[in-house]
Amino acid sequence: MRALVWDGKRTEVADDRPEPHPSDGMAVVRVHLAGVCSTDLQILQGYMGFTGVPGHEFVGHVEEGPDGLVGRRVVGEINFGCGACDRCRSGMSRHCPHRRVMGILGADGSFAELVAVPVANLHPVPGGLTDEQAVFTEPLAAAFSILEQVPVAPGADAVVLGDGKLGLLCAQVLRRAGATVTLVGRHDDKLALAAGFGITTVMTERAWRPAQDAAIVVEATGSADGLAAAMAAVRPRGTLVLKSTVAAEHRLSLAPLVIDEVTVVGSRCGLFPPALAALEEGSVAVLPLVEARYPLAEAVEAMAHAARRGARKVLLQCSR
Amino acid sequence: MRALVWDGKRTEVADDRPEPHPSDGMAVVRVHLAGVCSTDLQILQGYMGFTGVPGHEFVGHVEEGPDGLVGRRVVGEINFGCGACDRCRSGMSRHCPHRRVMGILGADGSFAELVAVPVANLHPVPGGLTDEQAVFTEPLAAAFSILEQVPVAPGADAVVLGDGKLGLLCAQVLRRAGATVTLVGRHDDKLALAAGFGITTVMTERAWRPAQDAAIVVEATGSADGLAAAMAAVRPRGTLVLKSTVAAEHRLSLAPLVIDEVTVVGSRCGLFPPALAALEEGSVAVLPLVEARYPLAEAVEAMAHAARRGARKVLLQCSR
Repeated sequence: MRALVWDGKRTEVADDRPEPHPSDGMAVVRVHLAGVCSTDLQILQGYMGFTGVPGHEFVGHVEEGPDGLVGRRVVGEINFGCGACDRCRSGMSRHCPHRRVMGILGADGSFAELVAVPVANLHPVPGGLTDEQAVFTEPLAAAFSILEQVPVAPGADAVVLGDGKLGLLCAQVLRRAGATVTLVGRHDDKLALAAGFGITTVMTERAWRPAQDAAIVVEATGSADGLAAAMAAVRPRGTLVLKSTVAAEHRLSLAPLVIDEVTVVGSRCGLFPPALAALEEGSVAVLPLVEARYPLAEAVEAMAHAARRGARKVLLQCSR
Repeated sequence: MRALVWDGKRTEVADDRPEPHPSDGMAVVRVHLAGVCSTDLQILQGYMGFTGVPGHEFVGHVEEGPDGLVGRRVVGEINFGCGACDRCRSGMSRHCPHRRVMGILGADGSFAELVAVPVANLHPVPGGLTDEQAVFTEPLAAAFSILEQVPVAPGADAVVLGDGKLGLLCAQVLRRAGATVTLVGRHDDKLALAAGFGITTVMTERAWRPAQDAAIVVEATGSADGLAAAMAAVRPRGTLVLKSTVAAEHRLSLAPLVIDEVTVVGSRCGLFPPALAALEEGSVAVLPLVEARYPLAEAVEAMAHAARRGARKVLLQCSR
């Protein structure tokens, strides 16, 4: 099959990657569309030491698997728990210490014609959703995980730092939950997009004056510097949600977190059902986030495009 | 009056410090005993840029103030809010942006014969408590603030890092709340003390093997390195309570907090009533924590003693 392959040094599109076959509770999904995430770009810089097929955002249909699922259109959660440990059995397979993670840790990902996914991780896509919408389920679920972890009071002042793909989703999810949201970013086009969703926007360099007054601050800049900015924005006893996985060292004193009794919540992947429901009811806009669409054969070019400063979501058309 | 005075360069005991006089809702307290805290030692190194009389742990009696209070034995909360801002009016005067903090920020402290404290900050000491017990109210309240901020499930695995004065109090408070507590420290005598309170103890260098399995980890080492150790001990989706105000830079990647979705709770001062209640019922032991007692005239020597590696609580006898 065709797939984008990263060998730890370079990426290339291979046409002879062996096809996955279903085994032990796995299904094989034919990928329609896959989304490129900042984590993929970090992986192509060596993050996690991963080699193989990257990609963890996808929508496709089940080609091999249980009878009831074959042919159905699906999206899939990316953490493959062992299913046997205490964490898996308590519903926290996302934190299974033995987990593989699609396209990130020990499991080939979705920048391919076919991808193997545990049956338990698959969610059927409601008929009303297009592939272009459904492919946003995974990053939108990551935004929804904030609501799983942090109580959002009606009208709470929330600040989202970073107008990247995840920042735009987090801002919408918080607004939908009833918060008064300000998005702080660096790109006129993306801030204009957010303004269209009813979100107050501020251009970082020109106009942002953090005043330690936000009840909730989401750090989604993707940069190690974002933490200091977030600490300047969050109020005493407020909550700072860390969404950026930055491999670089943070260098700052965390004493202000103690003095101001701030709660910092690390937040990664979320549950799919609330994300699918929000897509279905149309309460979170994702299509305006799409910047470009490439066939899988041009996946190397697609990665370069996604890495451009300020790029929005780049999609790969993997089959059909 | 006599007081220990820090001028930003050196400390000395002055006998001619002007006496405070009550004004605008303040009372004047004659200090019986004051406790030396690690923060005091940091202040004598330049922390917070404070100059004046340090000290924020005390028990004494009201010498000047409202009729009903004069003569009563009291302890006092250390944050002096403005009383007028939104935070003060919502009961969060501890986080008033205009606050003064006794012996730390803009207000003389308790290493003196007399100290001025807002009437609203004073709590009468129950008759059954000795001064030696009551002087622990402030640090014990700081330990109790953990329960204000973090839910502690019965039997939850908790690890306290640091067998200093605050670590020993936090470990007891968590055990009293029903957690299964392990105290990780560096001093045989203090670990033996904790073991006597029914707390499992581990000597850091010899036997500690953190395994990311604790639901709650309290970082009370007073060192910037404590955070990395705490991150190695806390389980995914667990809670890490930061108790150390370390002026030094932290240097580490916080990505594991995101990947493991850890919640970090900065925690500083607490409410006095639960601390007084625990002291009164005898459910937290404080007297074994006392290492030495000096008269105020020997306060410089007392500070040097408190700064010795492994020192427990040093008390200053300020009057009577």
